Formats: sequence, C-alpha cells, structure tokens
Amino acid sequence: MDHEGLHGLPIINNYLDGTQGGAVDSVSGMHFRDSKRKVDYVLAYHYRKRLAQHQHGASSPEPMNRAGSMTVVSNGETRKGRLKLQPDSGQHIPQELLGAQVIELGPLETLEEEKRLQREEYERNLVAAGLEIEKDAENKSQGLSFVRIHAPWQVLSREAELHKIKMPTKKMYEIKEEGGILKKLNKIWCKLTEPLQPQVPQENTKMKSLSYPFSREKIYLYNIRDKDTFFDNATRSRIVHEILKRTSTKARNSMGINTLIANNVYDAAYPLHDGEYEGQNDDMNERKLLYQEWARYGVFYKFQPIDLIRKYFGEKIGLYFAWLGLYTEFLIPSSVVGIFVFLYGCITIESDIPSKEMCDQRNAFTMCPLCDKFCDYWNLSSACATARASHLFDNPATVFFSIFMALWATMFLEQWKRLQMRLSYFWDLTGLEEEEEHPRPEYETKLLQKKLKNKNTTTEDPNEDEKDKLTWNDRIPGYAANCGLILFMIMLTFSAVFGVIVYRITTAAALSFSTHETTRSNVRVTVTATAVIINLVVILILDEIYGAVAKWLTEIEVPKTEKAFEERLILKAFLLKFVNSYAPIFYVAFFKGRFVGRPGHYVYVFDGYRMEECAPGGCLMELCIQLSIIMLGKQLIQNNLFEIGIPKLKKLFRKLKDGRTEPKEMNTNQSKDPQQWDLDYSLEPFTGLTPEYMEMIIQFGFVTLFVASFPLAPLFALLNNIIEVRLDAKKFVTELRRPDTVRAKDIGIWYNILSGIGKLSVIINAFVIAVTSDFIPRLMYQYAYSQNGTMHGFINHTLSYFNVSHLKAGTQPENSPFAQDVLFCRFKDYREPPWSPNQYEFSKQYWAVLSARLAFVILFQNLVMFLSVLVDWMIPDIPKDISEQIKKEKSVLVDFFLKEEHEKLKLIESFITRDKHKQKSGTKDQKSRAASFCQFDRSQKGSVASFSSQHTEV
Amino acid sequence: MDHEGLHGLPIINNYLDGTQGGAVDSVSGMHFRDSKRKVDYVLAYHYRKRLAQHQHGASSPEPMNRAGSMTVVSNGETRKGRLKLQPDSGQHIPQELLGAQVIELGPLETLEEEKRLQREEYERNLVAAGLEIEKDAENKSQGLSFVRIHAPWQVLSREAELHKIKMPTKKMYEIKEEGGILKKLNKIWCKLTEPLQPQVPQENTKMKSLSYPFSREKIYLYNIRDKDTFFDNATRSRIVHEILKRTSTKARNSMGINTLIANNVYDAAYPLHDGEYEGQNDDMNERKLLYQEWARYGVFYKFQPIDLIRKYFGEKIGLYFAWLGLYTEFLIPSSVVGIFVFLYGCITIESDIPSKEMCDQRNAFTMCPLCDKFCDYWNLSSACATARASHLFDNPATVFFSIFMALWATMFLEQWKRLQMRLSYFWDLTGLEEEEEHPRPEYETKLLQKKLKNKNTTTEDPNEDEKDKLTWNDRIPGYAANCGLILFMIMLTFSAVFGVIVYRITTAAALSFSTHETTRSNVRVTVTATAVIINLVVILILDEIYGAVAKWLTEIEVPKTEKAFEERLILKAFLLKFVNSYAPIFYVAFFKGRFVGRPGHYVYVFDGYRMEECAPGGCLMELCIQLSIIMLGKQLIQNNLFEIGIPKLKKLFRKLKDGRTEPKEMNTNQSKDPQQWDLDYSLEPFTGLTPEYMEMIIQFGFVTLFVASFPLAPLFALLNNIIEVRLDAKKFVTELRRPDTVRAKDIGIWYNILSGIGKLSVIINAFVIAVTSDFIPRLMYQYAYSQNGTMHGFINHTLSYFNVSHLKAGTQPENSPFAQDVLFCRFKDYREPPWSPNQYEFSKQYWAVLSARLAFVILFQNLVMFLSVLVDWMIPDIPKDISEQIKKEKSVLVDFFLKEEHEKLKLIESFITRDKHKQKSGTKDQKSRAASFCQFDRSQKGSVASFSSQHTEV
Repeated sequence: MDHEGLHGLPIINNYLDGTQGGAVDSVSGMHFRDSKRKVDYVLAYHYRKRLAQHQHGASSPEPMNRAGSMTVVSNGETRKGRLKLQPDSGQHIPQELLGAQVIELGPLETLEEEKRLQREEYERNLVAAGLEIEKDAENKSQGLSFVRIHAPWQVLSREAELHKIKMPTKKMYEIKEEGGILKKLNKIWCKLTEPLQPQVPQENTKMKSLSYPFSREKIYLYNIRDKDTFFDNATRSRIVHEILKRTSTKARNSMGINTLIANNVYDAAYPLHDGEYEGQNDDMNERKLLYQEWARYGVFYKFQPIDLIRKYFGEKIGLYFAWLGLYTEFLIPSSVVGIFVFLYGCITIESDIPSKEMCDQRNAFTMCPLCDKFCDYWNLSSACATARASHLFDNPATVFFSIFMALWATMFLEQWKRLQMRLSYFWDLTGLEEEEEHPRPEYETKLLQKKLKNKNTTTEDPNEDEKDKLTWNDRIPGYAANCGLILFMIMLTFSAVFGVIVYRITTAAALSFSTHETTRSNVRVTVTATAVIINLVVILILDEIYGAVAKWLTEIEVPKTEKAFEERLILKAFLLKFVNSYAPIFYVAFFKGRFVGRPGHYVYVFDGYRMEECAPGGCLMELCIQLSIIMLGKQLIQNNLFEIGIPKLKKLFRKLKDGRTEPKEMNTNQSKDPQQWDLDYSLEPFTGLTPEYMEMIIQFGFVTLFVASFPLAPLFALLNNIIEVRLDAKKFVTELRRPDTVRAKDIGIWYNILSGIGKLSVIINAFVIAVTSDFIPRLMYQYAYSQNGTMHGFINHTLSYFNVSHLKAGTQPENSPFAQDVLFCRFKDYREPPWSPNQYEFSKQYWAVLSARLAFVILFQNLVMFLSVLVDWMIPDIPKDISEQIKKEKSVLVDFFLKEEHEKLKLIESFITRDKHKQKSGTKDQKSRAASFCQFDRSQKGSVASFSSQHTEV
Repeated sequence: MDHEGLHGLPIINNYLDGTQGGAVDSVSGMHFRDSKRKVDYVLAYHYRKRLAQHQHGASSPEPMNRAGSMTVVSNGETRKGRLKLQPDSGQHIPQELLGAQVIELGPLETLEEEKRLQREEYERNLVAAGLEIEKDAENKSQGLSFVRIHAPWQVLSREAELHKIKMPTKKMYEIKEEGGILKKLNKIWCKLTEPLQPQVPQENTKMKSLSYPFSREKIYLYNIRDKDTFFDNATRSRIVHEILKRTSTKARNSMGINTLIANNVYDAAYPLHDGEYEGQNDDMNERKLLYQEWARYGVFYKFQPIDLIRKYFGEKIGLYFAWLGLYTEFLIPSSVVGIFVFLYGCITIESDIPSKEMCDQRNAFTMCPLCDKFCDYWNLSSACATARASHLFDNPATVFFSIFMALWATMFLEQWKRLQMRLSYFWDLTGLEEEEEHPRPEYETKLLQKKLKNKNTTTEDPNEDEKDKLTWNDRIPGYAANCGLILFMIMLTFSAVFGVIVYRITTAAALSFSTHETTRSNVRVTVTATAVIINLVVILILDEIYGAVAKWLTEIEVPKTEKAFEERLILKAFLLKFVNSYAPIFYVAFFKGRFVGRPGHYVYVFDGYRMEECAPGGCLMELCIQLSIIMLGKQLIQNNLFEIGIPKLKKLFRKLKDGRTEPKEMNTNQSKDPQQWDLDYSLEPFTGLTPEYMEMIIQFGFVTLFVASFPLAPLFALLNNIIEVRLDAKKFVTELRRPDTVRAKDIGIWYNILSGIGKLSVIINAFVIAVTSDFIPRLMYQYAYSQNGTMHGFINHTLSYFNVSHLKAGTQPENSPFAQDVLFCRFKDYREPPWSPNQYEFSKQYWAVLSARLAFVILFQNLVMFLSVLVDWMIPDIPKDISEQIKKEKSVLVDFFLKEEHEKLKLIESFITRDKHKQKSGTKDQKSRAASFCQFDRSQKGSVASFSSQHTEV
C-alpha cells in the first residue's frame, strides 16, 4: 500500500534496508516487509558478483535499476502497471546483456552470469503469472539470498479452480452416527481413550461442511470470511509450488523449479514452517502444537493428531503416519497373542514328552560323531538344553499363530483400505483425479541430447512422434545395465551368505581341532553367534550400498515422471533389500542341514569340510536365533542409531563447512535476528518417504514371513514402532524443511508390496511349519506309528541306525574312549537300518512323513488363502457409514446447489426486469446483445423454476 | 403448435380420432400426432371402465373432460398455463372422487378406480416435471392404452446437467496413433480384416471430440446443431426413465414407475425401438442396421459393431457384447492349441510304451475280478482300447496345456480390463460416479409394514434412525431361510450325484448277473452312458429350479437397491448352478475309484455292493467323457434349444391368450396399422443380462477348470459362442422390447467370479494332473524305478500282487474256467506283495509317488500363480495409448476452456463498459447492485486476463 505512490513502478524491497530503518513489525518473520502479505514460498540461491562491475554494488544505481525490475512487489491493485512493465523489461535486458557480454568474463563468471539471467527471467515469469515477490538486495560480493513469494487471492482462486481443489462450502451437514449399541460402545471407547487423545483443537466432529471443487463462478457457495485465510498455508504453498513447477525459462528450454535446482540456478525451494517449535512465548502455531502433542517421546502413548498432521504436511505424509499408526495399533493384538503362544511353550515345556525323552539319561542314544576324526560319539541327552529351548518355538500353538498372523495381515490390509477411504472422505479426496506430471529434468536433458544428435545425423526423420519421446532403443542400455547390476547385486548377496556359511564350516572344523576342552564344547555357540553377527554387519553395509545403487540405477533408466521414478526406485530398492535381509534366513530355514548326506556318505565341500548340520534341537531353533538377532540388530542399529545419529552428524558437518566458507558475513548479518526462512534454510531438505516406508515394510516382512519360528517378532516390532513414530515425527517437525504438500489418495505401490508380502508369508509359513519344524513328524508318530497313541518313543523313531564299521577309513573318531563298545551309532533321519536289504536307503516312513509334510503345505496354503479371500470379501473396502455419507453428501450437494441457484436467479431476474425498462430507450445494438444474454438466462430460469417446484413437492 | 389457440388449455390428443380424421403423417409411428415431437418412452396399461357410468363413453362429455385434464400435451411454450392447471385439477379430482365413492362399487371396480387415480396423479406429476404426454382416449369398456412421453429440450438439458452426462463439445482432437512398425502392422491388420468388419457407418476414428459433462451455463461449448437430435435416442430415453423412476405419487407414498408396475397400475414401460428391423423400404434405421450387420447368423464371421450396439442399447449391454466378443476371440487361440494337444496325443499313441504294453497279448497280466462271485479273472490286454483312448488325453502335452490355459485365463482377464478401459474412454465413461439408487418397491413395502407395526406396538422409539431402515433383526428370518435353503439345495445336488452313483453300482451289479454274454461285455459302456445322461438331465432340471429358487431367496432377503438385488441374486444363482454343474465332475475327478479298498478287503456300500472303480485306462478317461457330455449336452439343450424354443413357445402362448380374451377389439382397431408402441408391446420384456452372463461363466468354468482332462473344451465353447453371439443379438434386436439404457463402467461382480474361477482352475488342474492322471507315476517310474530309463515295465510296476487264496469266502469267481491255474491275481495299486511281512500294506513306492504327486501340486500351483501375477503385473490395466489420451484430453480441455472463457469475457467486458455509461444516469439502487455484479466479474476478468497472457507466452 505504502509503495504505491512511487510513480506506478514497484520498488525495491530490500529487507536489510528495512531492518535498518527500524520498520520491522513482521510477525516472527513469516511476512513480507509490509507485514501483511504472507510468505508462501521461499527460493534460496547463492550469488557471486563480478567484482569488476560492482564490488559493493548495493548502492550503485545500475544494478539497483535491474534489481528493480526484478524484485517486484505487485500490490494486487496496480495490475495494469505490472502488465505494462513486462515488455519494457523484456526489451531492456537483452540490450544490457549484449553490453555485458562485451566485457570479457572468466568461465566461472560466465556461468554465474547465466544463472543470474535465468533467475531474472524466471522471476519475471513468476510475476507475470500473478505471484508477488520480495527479494533481498545482493549487497555483498557473494552470499545467500532469498526470494520470497506471496500468492495473492486472484492467483489462489484461479489455481484452486484449475486444480479442482475441494473447498468447504457454507453448507454444513450432520454426520450420521451409528445407532443403538454401537453408539454406546463408541461413547465408552471415547471416554476410555480420552487421556490418550492429543490435546489438539478439534473441529466439530459431528458436522462436516460440504466440499465442492473451488469455482470462481460459484463463489457465493463458499464460506469466505477472510480471503487471506480461506486457503490454509499448506494449500497456499502447494499452489505456489504448482506454479513454480510449470513456469519455464526460455533460455535453456527448461521447465520449472526442479530443473533450475538441478542446474544449480537455485539452491533450494521450500515453503516456510509455521514458526518456532520451541520457545516459551504464548503464541501457539501449528508446528509448536505438533511438537508438543505429537513429536515428543513424552507423548508416546497418545494417538496421533492425524488431521493436524495432514493439514500441516499434506495428504501424502498424513497418509504415511496414519498407516504407521494403524500398523502399530495392529501390532498390539498380535504381540499379545505372540506372548501367549510363547508362554504356552514355556508352560508345556515340562509336559513335552520328546524333550523329556531326550533329556532322560536312561535313554542312551549313542549318536554318530559330528565331525570326522576329531569328534567322538556323543550321547543325545547332552543336547537336552537345546531340545527344551526348541520346544518354546516348536509347538502346536505356533501353527495356530501362523494362521492367525496370515489372517492378521489380510485384516490389516483391509482395515487400511477402509481407513484410507475414511480419510479420503474426511480430507475431501474422493474423486481426486491423477494430474499430468511434468517430465523430470533428467528426462528433458536426455531428450534434448537426443534431439541434437538426431539433427546432426539425419535431417529428415520419418517418425515424427518418436522425436519427442525416448524410444525403446534409447532405453536399452539403461535397462540392460539395470538387469545386469541387479543380478550382480543379488549374486553378491548370495556370495555373502555363502561366505558366512564357509566361515561357519571352516571355523567349526578349526575349533574342533583345538585341544582346549572349553573351546571345543562351546564350538557351536561361538560359531553361530559370530556368524550371525557377521551376517548382520554384512546386511547393514549392503543395505546402504543397495540404497545408493538402486537410486543410481533408476537414474540411468531415465524415467519420464517423478512418479515413475519413485515407483521404479522403490521396486528396485525393495527387491535388493528384501533379498539382502532375508537370504541368510531363507538359507537357515530351508537349506541348512538338508544336504548333509548320511554317516559313511557325507557331503563334502572344499575337500574335506562336511556340510553343516542343524543343532539336535532342530533347525527351527537356529532359524529363531538368526531371525531375532537380525531383526533386533537391524532395528536397533539401522533405524535408531543411524536415523538419530547420521542427521546429527550431517548437521554438524554442514555447520562446520558453512562456518569455514563464510564466517564473517554469517555472523554480522543473520545471527542477529534470524528470520523464518533463514532458520528453515539451515534445516535438512525433505527427501521423500521412501526410506521410512522401506524400513517398515522390511519389518512387516520379519513380522509375517517367518512368524512361525519366532512368535515374539510382533512384540519387538511394536516396541520399535512406538519409538519410530515419535522419531519420525520429531524429524519432520524439527529437523527437516517443511515438505511440499502433496495430495495423494493412497500409499501407492507400497500397498501392493505389503499385499505381496502377505501372500508370500502364507506359503513360507506353510513350509516352515511343514519342513523346518518337527510338527508333522510328531503328528505322524502320534497317530500312525505310536503303539499307544502317545508321544513316547518318538525320539527313538526319528533316529536311524548306522553300523560304525561302515564308516569310511580315516573318518572314525580318533581318540574315542568307548569306540570298542559302540556297534551302532544313531543319526537323525528316516533311513533303512543296516540289517535291511536296502540299507541306508530312505525308509517308508521317510516317504510317508514327506507326503504328510507336503499335504500339510497344500492344505495350509489353500486354507489360509481361502480364509484371506473370505476376510477380504467379508470386510467391505469402503466402510458402510462412509459410503452412506458420500451418497448423502451428493444429494445434499444437489439440494444446496438448486437452492443457491434459485436465489441467485431471483436476484438476476429482478435485475433484468429493471434493466429492460431502460433498454427500451437504449441503442439497437445494445438491445440485441442484451436480449441474447437474457434469452439464455430465461431458459435457465424456466427450467430451474420447474425443477424447484418439483423438488418442493417431493 | 396447432393446439395452442384452444383457450390456453391443452386438448385431448385422441390418436384414433386422428387416424379417422386422416391426419396421419407420423413417420413410422415414432412421433406424437404433430409428427414433430419424438416419443421417448411409452407406458402401457389395461383399463376397465365402470359400466354404470359410461358404456361406450368415448362420446360422453364427462370422461372427456377428465381425460382432458390428463392427456396433456404441453407444447413447451404455455408453461404458465400448465403450472396454473395443477391446483385446478388437484382440487377438482378429490371432489369428483367423493362423488364417485358415494356410488357403490364392487371391490374390483374400486381397485380399478384407485389405479386410475394413481395413474392420473402420476401423469400430472410427470407433466409438472416438464415432460410432455400424449394419450389415447379410453373409448372402450376395457382395453390397452398407451401413454407416450416426450422430453423437451429444457428437460433434457436440465437432467443432462444434473446427471453429469458427458456430451461432445465443439473441440475435436486427433487421436495419437502408434508410430513406426506398430502403425504398419495395424494397417496390414485392418486391410486383412476388412471383409470381417461390419458395414456400419463409422465416425472418424482418428478424431475424437472432447467430451464434457453437460452444463447449461457453458452451453457455448457444445456443438448443438439441432436441439432435437443433440441427445441421441438412447440418452433421451434414459433421461425420461430417470424422471419416471424418481417421480412419486403421494397416494400410496410410493416412488417411481417400478413401484407402479409392481402394483399393476401400469403394465409396462419401455422406450421405443427405432423402427422395423425388416422390410424392403429404404429408410435405414439403427435397428435395421443392427439386424443386417450383426443380428443374423449370416454375418457370424464379422466383428460386432460394438459402438452401434452401445449407442442403441446402452453401455451395460454394449459391455456384455464386447465381453462376449473378446471371450470368443480369446477362445480361438486356445482352441487351436487344444487341437494341437489332441493331435499330439493321436500321433504319439503308437509310440506310447505303457499302452503298447497293455495291448501286448504276450504280457499276460491276470487281473483280479471286477465284481464278487459273478465276475471272472480277466486279462489286462482286453482293456487295450481304453488304454489307447486314455493316452489321447493323458499325456505330457496336457500338462503344458493346463499351464497354458491358466495363463490364458489371466491374460483374458487382463485384456478385458484393458478393453473395458478403452471402451470407457471412447464411450466417455471415465470419471463416471456411482449414483444413488432408489430403493426397490419391495423394500419400501416392507419398510412401510414395519413402520405401521411399530406405530401399533410402541408409540415411542428410542432409536430414531432405525425406523427408516431394515435392521439386522428384520432381516434375520430372510438370512436364515437363505442359508438353510441354499444348504438344502446343495445337499439336494449331492444326493442327486450320489443317487446316480448308486444307480451305477446297482445297475452294474445287476447287469453282471445277466447270463447274456453281450450284455455283460458292454456293462461298463451301458452303465456309464446312461448314468451320464441321467446326470445331464438332473443338471438341466435342477438348473431351472435353482434359477427360480435363487430369485425367490433373494426376494425374501429384501435387498435395498436394485444393484444389491442383482449382486446377491447372481452370487446365489452362481453358487447353486456351479455346484450343480460340477458336482458329478468333481466326483469323477477326485473321488471315484479312491475308496475301493483292495482285493480281499473291498469297501462295500448297501450291504454287498462294491464301490465303483475307474476303468483300467485310468479315471482321466472317464472324467473326459463326463465332462464332454455334460458340457456339450448343456450347451446344445440349454443354450440353444431352450433359448430359441422357449421364447417362441411363450410368444405363441401369449398370442393365443390375447386372442381369446379380446378377439374382436384387437382385430378391428389395431391390426390395421400397428404403431411402433403396439409392435413393441407385443415383444417380450427385457429381464436383465444375468442369464446370458451366467451361461457364459459356467462355460468358462468348463473351459478352464478341468481343461487338463479335455483339451477340446475350448473348441466346443468356441463353436457354441459363434452361434451364441448371434442368437443373443437376434433376441435383443427382434424379440425383446428395447431395454432401458444403463450406464456402466464395468461388468461388475462377474469379473470377480471370472477371476475366482481362474484361480480355482489352477488348483483344480494341479490336482487333476497330479492325482487323476498317470503323469506323475510315469515320470517317477521313468526317472526313479526304471532299470534303463525307459517306460518298459511300467504297467507291471503299477500292478500289485494278490494271493487268490486270500479272497474271502463267497467272493471267489464262481464259474471260472481257469480258477485252478491262477495263484496270484493283479490289481492296480502300490501295495506290498503277499510274500512281504506287511502284506497288502501300502508300499514304499506308494508313499514316494504320493510325495511326488503332492510336490507337483505345490510346484504347479505356485508356479502358475506366480506366472499369473507376473502377467497381471506386466500388462498394465490401462492401455498406454489410452492413458496418454486421457491425459491429453485433460490438457486440451483446459486450453479449450480458457480460450472460450476468454472470448466470452471479452464480450461481457464490452457489454459492461457500455452499460456503465448508462448507469451513471441510473437510480442509486440499481447502481449499487450493478456494481456488486460487476465487481465480481471484474475480478474474474482480471485473473483470466493474466492467465491467458501467461498461456500465450508459454
């Protein structure tokens, strides 16, 4: 307002001048200098001036003038002046440019100059698009400068209409609540959970205002109290970001802010946070509210204020936290059931006959030696402890638990679909259509290169339309590299797993040579523990590498849009990380101990090393150890240490670096009273939700895939997630620049991955129970082979006989004290005894048990899949109340419309009838036009009248 | 027009009077008497007059007057007159009514009178809603009368806006074609298939006009040449139908035409066909075109004119025929592959070692007798023929074929999704939202009953909102009856199957007593053939019963909306018919011959009857016979005979009945020159697509579920469908009243059923191959047991030995000529020989083969499922060109909008500036209102101006 008088041209808005002039009354640095116009977006760049022209050029008139054409503050009422300005400056600059290019410039300076010109053009275009801009004067030789952007009402309303942003109308309607018992239950639930609810000002939950895509023609529909606050901050910044994305600069034929950032023309572009999140002063902003009620460990027990999160960070991030919250809630019942299953194991351990039999000293099962030459025959009762431990996880309750978890996963996905639907109703996302995305800068660059190349080689091209997109041919190298490298990476993972196996085999062999008694007795524990830790370290290292590789691979694939980029990156990263995390576990579950051979005919690798066997308690025990250590280690180290530590280190590093490069200027100017944009600039940029989701998805895999072997997995996941939610929240609120708000209806490809894991978990659990655990052999024994229907004699039944005289020469135990007494040793397998005609062949029991195992797999898989489909089908994807609300909203909308239209038409009608009186004395030309105008209106009026009469009748 | 002068009131429009007056110039009976207004919809009813008042009352003034208030023809320009009419007639009739009720009436007459009043009220409401009506005079004591309805432009435009019907705008844009090789291939394909294309006038396929939901505010966008033809016939009739559905009559608080038809107030309501489909005259209408190019067997080789079908019958029926067409096309490759698989069987039959071994007379396998006492030992070589025939279907190619068919099913569903997407793009269905449906009449009646009951019992009800819907409590009886009856029906099916089994067992036993030699030798053939025919007859009968039962069950469930009704009906009918069709096949595939026991220890049912065995060739052969006879029989009898015969019979019956009741009047009046509505009334009403889909879905089951046993199934399905398409087409074009056009984006629940069958087929085929066929035993023999890796000795390996002395007393063959020579007989099973310690127990081979079978099931199921998922994932649901077109359409739309808006604003701007000059001399009051009006416009103008300037720059 106060700048208007200055001969119609917008003036420079040098912020530093302002502060020196003492005119600072901006509320916490969120506004333009006039303290009225909100800063909706900030662009930051480093500038470096040509010393020859202006050393401290802030006061020289020439740059002032140019800056003047740039640092426009359009006040929203001098539109014509602004529009006139354009051709002026457009003609003005090229002349200057020509002049500037005469002066010789270094290559660095040329680059700087070019960037400056691009910035100028870009900002001019922004102003032309209706945005208002405020800029710091570049009064130093080099430094950081901010371009602050404000979107006036016209721009906001225009863009809101263009992007069909749904806005609340005047009309409110009641949300129908459940009746009867459900209502009461709901009330009780609300009462009970009241202390868990975050203390966030909530809108009326019983009423919802009808939303309708914003339309300037129907402006009377909306409840606009104040044009400055009608669109909330998130929407404002999204609108500005949309304009930034599509505004182009001709110079390099580039499109949008992303390209400019990629070309280093700008350093950063971000919307502002709502203010400080700490501080004692009373003025509450949303960020502070979020910090106090959500982003602290102290409030870990509370629900998340999802609506506020969505309002502040946008729908996409809101959906992530809603998903994470639902997942964490769903982990509670599964943890409880998991604990019960574990307790069942603990309680029944004393009554478990097989482990009792194993521990019974009277049953003297002389087992065949575990290694050649240096190992002795041993008594099975020495493995008593492992057998007992193994029962904790290998009992019938586990079968129940895996079915439970498979259904749990289905239920979780169904509930998520419902929650998603509910949210998209309350967040007005129903009917949101996908928008066309702009190509990524990298894609454009590649396309440009191709075009240039084509121009050079062939002047005429028969395929016109193949010019403007990358064809299969252009992509082949990228795809080939992708396939190759992904295969290589997977091979790398496998070799790492194999390396650890070799480590285990060789170390075990080496340690068994040892003469030290305690060493030898602890061989298994030592080897297993160290191997798992090596596995864990390898996984952690490869995980980081794979993250980078996946990104790089996706980049050389040059996907067209940001969305395609994200999807492909996720798929690749998921594939690599999945294989990496689970390969050792798969090995233990399904391969370890299955290729051992038999006494007298062992399988050897690397001349002389016997393949490793599982402990006598069964492979399930080892699987459990492997799974728990990898899962817990990964969570503790990767999620918490890395996530907390690395950002801190990064920050420290950046501070040190910044401090080194510009130590003086920083201190003199900005430390005094840092504005919000300064503060936000010092935060880390937001780089997407992929790592957050990935971490959770891999965890979901641990919880579901091998849950048969480790019922406590959900519990540990739950504990981790309670921290994780607050950790992520804290990161978003305090450590990151405010992300651009993105509208999203769903969590995209993650849902497919989750559902894929859910399906995979069914078959994997079926195999774990059937093949890895002893569940089926026990069942078979009890109902088919046992004499009296009890488990007595089971251990004896699972052990085959071996005639020690059949041991190959050189593999007999060397220093055995009772080698003379032993005629037969036992080993765990179903094979024909030495006295049978087909000695050591697989026995009939072997095949019978195998049949039972496989039959179990088929039964389990199909039963659980059928139940999942049933659950999926029984739970409707759209909650019934929501689907009713949506229908109701539609009918309310039609009624509301007709009412408003009717009133409007009445007004126009009276206006027209009065107008007609005048027109009788008007010119003929005007009359005819008015007539055509009115005719249209009349037909409308008529139809609406008949319509409304009908409606009132109904 | 010519009726206008008559004192402002609409006049009677007695059609018969018109014909007698010789003023008939209506074009083929499609228009009102003025030959201008098209008849968009027809309501038909039977009337019966009170004889006391008017015997041949056509000439008496009183009914004339009343009819006059009814048979309104509103001419679209006397609206005020019409609106005034309402209160008049509203007051008029009750008085009359009171008068009428004083005269004593019979109960039948009271009912007639009430119906007449309802009709009058309903028609009055239709006129109030803006429709125009023409009616025949009721000039007979009783007879058929038609109400013809015309929708004028105002109604059409209003409703089109309300229902967001997408209409083409002026803007055309080019559809981007594939470039390069694809384009050429496409051209060649078009050339090749040119004779197969129907000769239908096609719109420009390279250009598509941009569609946008119709809006009267934006009327300038659309290309309206003639308001009478802008909306096509299908759209017009849909709009009228919508109004008919929502117009209510207060009298019985009932809603819409469906309730009225349900209450017999009207007989029928239908839109008119476009004219005659036969006849030599040149005027081509769409119905005739459809008949000539689509609905004749002569054009069976041509593609379907899907766009025309959709235009004529609406989207829902269009989608059905598109689906049927795609399915039929997809059957072609599978038939070809099926034939090749069959041929492979034929060719390799000579080189198949097992069947050769079986036929070899030198291998004297003495088999155990097939029945007790009366059957003799027999030589395996006598079953040579079956063994050879069995090889036709039981060979490795079948395994390949089942994998192929599983993938084929996935591919088909994927392609259908794509085609659906493509159609919904070209048919402008993208973004179509579900509309709220009106409750069904039955639901409303039930609700009314409940309300009345509640009023009687309790005056106060705590749950307000439970009043206006049916709660769980109200529904329990319905649901219980459903569950019970469905279970009963399924049991019925099972008992029918069991009955046929019993028939087979007993007849076989009875026939084997026979002394006649040829009878005994043909026992198996006779029994099998007759049993299958009985099965088929039972299936056909139960199918009809189940269709009726499903409908009845759904009705007692009282679903709220028509859509819910349809879905539940489909699910129930599908479940019942599926079980009915497949139960005998399942029995043969998985149960027959598996509970026989072994020689000396047979399983007996009904004291003394041995369980039936499969033929020596294996169960697959019997499965094949069962499948092919049921499939072919069902198709031939049900689909063709029933579908062609029953409608003809119905028609004949109706004609006879009509001829009996009103023989005189019919002949005198209507046979002269039947109008289109008369002709259409004589057709069958359209009753939904459910039977058509059901038939095809059951066929799809035959093609996929057991395809492993019958590779020729797709071929027979193909042959059937080629006829089926034309049969259905003929039915729709010539035998049915024109159906209401219904918009639909997809085929709804049928897709889910199809996909469910696809998934089920994987597991069923896995079991058929593993368990029913001899594929796995052969493989096992070749690679595990055979001495030299060939199949020689396989037959011997599959036969176990039995010591005839172990046969129970009384079961030995009575009249055996060589009973003395036989020591051991053989039977097909893997059991220990008599000389083993565990004689007749399952042998190790049995368990090994069983393991292999089960492993195959797991492998097959997971492999095929994985491949299906892969195919699903690889083929995008939305064809790439369509998704690009949709995006392009959006951007074209925005550009087009801005351009039009710009032009419009220019006009308004000039209008306003001129207006301002005047306003300076106007009154103050007007000035302020105009100012507010203009202010709004100015802000709009400004923003658009800046917008467009930006756009031109870009």
